Amino acid sequence: MPLSRTPLWFDDLHVGLRHRSADSAPVDTAAITGFAADWDPQPFHLDDAAARATLFGGLAASGWHTAAITMRLLVTSGVPVAGGMIGAGVQLDWPRPVRPGDVLHVVSEVVELIPSRSKPDRGIAVIRSETRNQRDEAVMVQTAKLVVPRRNQALGQ
Amino acid sequence: MPLSRTPLWFDDLHVGLRHRSADSAPVDTAAITGFAADWDPQPFHLDDAAARATLFGGLAASGWHTAAITMRLLVTSGVPVAGGMIGAGVQLDWPRPVRPGDVLHVVSEVVELIPSRSKPDRGIAVIRSETRNQRDEAVMVQTAKLVVPRRNQALGQ
Repeated sequence: MPLSRTPLWFDDLHVGLRHRSADSAPVDTAAITGFAADWDPQPFHLDDAAARATLFGGLAASGWHTAAITMRLLVTSGVPVAGGMIGAGVQLDWPRPVRPGDVLHVVSEVVELIPSRSKPDRGIAVIRSETRNQRDEAVMVQTAKLVVPRRNQALGQ
Repeated sequence: MPLSRTPLWFDDLHVGLRHRSADSAPVDTAAITGFAADWDPQPFHLDDAAARATLFGGLAASGWHTAAITMRLLVTSGVPVAGGMIGAGVQLDWPRPVRPGDVLHVVSEVVELIPSRSKPDRGIAVIRSETRNQRDEAVMVQTAKLVVPRRNQALGQ
């Protein structure tokens, strides 16, 4: 059930709210090796032949590349949280490699809502997001704690 | 205490082993806004004036940028784990923003070693890494589960 891009305040969220990214992200060999060359220059992310002899069994995207793609999908077409996606912390797992030719999307669910005790202008929304490939297999699972303003609040420092 | 770049097998690690990245990474405005434009296009990562009105109070790097910088520091000069840095999962926290002009390094400590029950060729090393700025303040804390081969094992799939 796609939401409109109308910003959602903390008060607008509810546990169980689900959202699928409207956008999807194709991943090709050049993108995988380009990201890896910049940020994670290890053989299994840079070269298919070298990757075959490793745990990955072939070229695989850096998990940080998958995380970056996921963030872009969330920012452009994920849950439209008021004030932006501001993460205080996140748990990440990568159950399966991302391969050249994969096309990723993200499915998110609000799993917990924690009003701040000390700051009445905000709350923490705990959102679990699965990044999935074109076969709907999870390639990354993240549980993020987002700082979300209460209705009509602009968060200061 | 810097280690040599001699690869360390699971058997070579011990709980309490500490390592500081030999390299450090300067972060400037162009790097912050460039990464954000590609992966996390939100105003507080793209424009200083826009960022002043937000929780960040000024331009701040995307947490995923900090994570990517940290990975590069770990790959090029972190604990030289045999077989490479292969993460099964990670917990991330960002206690403090990264600002233009910051210079980052990483301090890591082995906190737990878990031999695999089902696969005698490997174990899980739990490594806590703090990414710190030039004032030795933590900007990111991660606890990663790495898959590490036992001595002279090449991990297959």
